[in-house]
Amino acid sequence: MEDCLFCKIRDGELNCHKVYEDDSILAFLDIQPLTRGHTLVIPKEHASSMDKLSSDSAAALGKALPIVSGAVLKATGAIAYNLIQNNGHEAGMTIAHVHVHIIPRYPDSTHSFVWKYGKIDHEDAKVLADSISAVL
Amino acid sequence: MEDCLFCKIRDGELNCHKVYEDDSILAFLDIQPLTRGHTLVIPKEHASSMDKLSSDSAAALGKALPIVSGAVLKATGAIAYNLIQNNGHEAGMTIAHVHVHIIPRYPDSTHSFVWKYGKIDHEDAKVLADSISAVL
Repeated sequence: MEDCLFCKIRDGELNCHKVYEDDSILAFLDIQPLTRGHTLVIPKEHASSMDKLSSDSAAALGKALPIVSGAVLKATGAIAYNLIQNNGHEAGMTIAHVHVHIIPRYPDSTHSFVWKYGKIDHEDAKVLADSISAVL
Repeated sequence: MEDCLFCKIRDGELNCHKVYEDDSILAFLDIQPLTRGHTLVIPKEHASSMDKLSSDSAAALGKALPIVSGAVLKATGAIAYNLIQNNGHEAGMTIAHVHVHIIPRYPDSTHSFVWKYGKIDHEDAKVLADSISAVL
């Protein structure tokens, strides 16, 4: 995709601090890191959201996550980490090319989610689960 | 794993609102939903964090994400969504069995991340990227 920053990084038109690459996947350090070692893992295929990613690229992306996460942990000494992948600008996606954030957590890390648990409505959940299954 | 809630759900010892299942993967509605349609996708393999997940399960997990995300979007009419996967209790993981949250976003959704961008130190990033690559 023209004008996609991550396609340009993939194509070598923009520099990055690369940490991993295979036939389908590229991983590099985020230039606006939340914490030291904040890494982005992208499929080389351009897809604007996870639901539009091809099956092969999605499998390759999944396969890369334990590999890259483990390496980030070892190299940084982080105690824990979050993976975040946003879809749609309403969900905080700023570059419309699928990317998984690996965000190491340290004892002094302050990033957090405003996470207000709801309570499931089992009647509605039954209807909803059926309607999701029906699409599949 | 004994006492793992998600292993019990996988084994049918606990109920769930199932939305998807294949040989390696199970997806069901979160019982403490942030928003309507909040879904968990888990590998059937028990692994306490992403870096410990087998390559086969990780590929299967990746492959399931576009499928289940797309179905959740269609069934709920959500405009966007976040995928979150926490590793380690310091990162907010409450059940130590890998699970990916699919969290639909609606116009009135209020969940958010406290996300303070840093600025990369390119000297340090070079050293760090090299040390991550060296582990791989």
